[in-house]
Amino acid sequence: MPEAKKMSLNTATVSKQWSLREAIEGCARHGIGAISPWRDKLQECGADEARRLIDGHGLGVSGLCRGGWYTSQGVLSQAVIDDNKRAVDEAATIGAACLVMVVGGLVPGSKDLLSARTIVRDGLALTTEYARSVGVPIAIEPLHPMYAGDRACVNTMGQALDLCEEIGDGIGVAMDVYHVWWDPDLENQIRRAGRQRLLAFHVCDWLVPTRDLLLDRGMMGDGVIDVPKLRSWVEREGFDGYVEVEIFSSEAWWKRDPDEVLRVLVERSMSAV
Amino acid sequence: MPEAKKMSLNTATVSKQWSLREAIEGCARHGIGAISPWRDKLQECGADEARRLIDGHGLGVSGLCRGGWYTSQGVLSQAVIDDNKRAVDEAATIGAACLVMVVGGLVPGSKDLLSARTIVRDGLALTTEYARSVGVPIAIEPLHPMYAGDRACVNTMGQALDLCEEIGDGIGVAMDVYHVWWDPDLENQIRRAGRQRLLAFHVCDWLVPTRDLLLDRGMMGDGVIDVPKLRSWVEREGFDGYVEVEIFSSEAWWKRDPDEVLRVLVERSMSAV
Repeated sequence: MPEAKKMSLNTATVSKQWSLREAIEGCARHGIGAISPWRDKLQECGADEARRLIDGHGLGVSGLCRGGWYTSQGVLSQAVIDDNKRAVDEAATIGAACLVMVVGGLVPGSKDLLSARTIVRDGLALTTEYARSVGVPIAIEPLHPMYAGDRACVNTMGQALDLCEEIGDGIGVAMDVYHVWWDPDLENQIRRAGRQRLLAFHVCDWLVPTRDLLLDRGMMGDGVIDVPKLRSWVEREGFDGYVEVEIFSSEAWWKRDPDEVLRVLVERSMSAV
Repeated sequence: MPEAKKMSLNTATVSKQWSLREAIEGCARHGIGAISPWRDKLQECGADEARRLIDGHGLGVSGLCRGGWYTSQGVLSQAVIDDNKRAVDEAATIGAACLVMVVGGLVPGSKDLLSARTIVRDGLALTTEYARSVGVPIAIEPLHPMYAGDRACVNTMGQALDLCEEIGDGIGVAMDVYHVWWDPDLENQIRRAGRQRLLAFHVCDWLVPTRDLLLDRGMMGDGVIDVPKLRSWVEREGFDGYVEVEIFSSEAWWKRDPDEVLRVLVERSMSAV
């Protein structure tokens, strides 16, 4: 089981309670080794100041969430391309291990998955080209198929890796157990990814029942995902990055004292990760 | 677009409003060509009486919902095996085109997807062996990955077809657009299935947002699934069965006058299927 210093706190886990500064200080207080900010928290703080705080507390940065959303304007607009460049720059500023991409769902008003996926491929290729020049790895996060309509039309590790192979160097996957645990081909695809394409490993748990499609993720150990097994598959390939905890939980963890959340997170990292 | 007589009413669509007898009479009244009962409704009515009513109204039977649930007792118990035999017999009695299988999720208390899938394979093989002797085709329904924990650990067409090939004759798939529309490999897998393995085609729609994992399915045309395209892929393989409408909708369609539901269903069959 990982020690606290191998864990990373995704700021979404305490997004209703803490600013980025507070989250950084919380990680340091609980011995958590790294942080992964969302861009809204980062921008509140300012990327330079965030870097200073993160370095000052000796934390790693397992990723920046998130770029992507290529389909949001119907075509691959300059605004979307530029925003992704800014995200790359921000990731570089804070020394993030990768920029995590939530690629976007169907074009609003459209039912054409194939064309959405084409926009996403083109967008990822452009962002990756820029990110290579800055030295920031791009990490596609395949999202659970229940988000295909409105959040991400890349929904399996296999599909994400097909994109990586098409685009080439500088791009890999951010694997969140919540999105992929059900996939009968998961072990094979992790092997296919290999160390080079495995850029981030996110954990939480799938609750039964799940009461909300977006905001009812569980703490590791409270659901049905065999997190240690999935971690073993990823680490077998040589992945040695942080184990990043990202929990969207409007009715449970977002309502609790954030120090209590981090205390449980550290406990569970040793019993259920 | 299909005519009403090519459509089938899955009784789940009006499950809170109508008995099987009322649903049969409703189909006849609205020119809908077939029905697909759930077993609870069938057992209330009695399978022999149901057959008499169905035949008396000149309806087809596109399926019986549902057998399966192999993992519910932790091992493949005799009770589960026997219940599936009874389901096969009921399907035979009413002349159903297939017995639709919701295979079951994780064993209660377990996180071991692989062993659940092994139980399911063994169960399906046994049921299919019996069903061959009775002449009832077995149709695996891959369920959306969001049900992998608690309802069905077979979650893609590819996975279902792997099972079919392992088990042999007498088994195929029931494809519900709700469960598979997101799958980047769907068109290939439909081609792989071919006419022989395509035993049922179910429609409804994926609403954005979806408010409940189980009971918030939409009427065709109200969501983001390109139903006509998926139907064209299935029919290209030679599928010429009924288009079955199955909508679980606790807050919308289950609260409406069932004759209104059927009127809209027939309209939408011509505009959105």
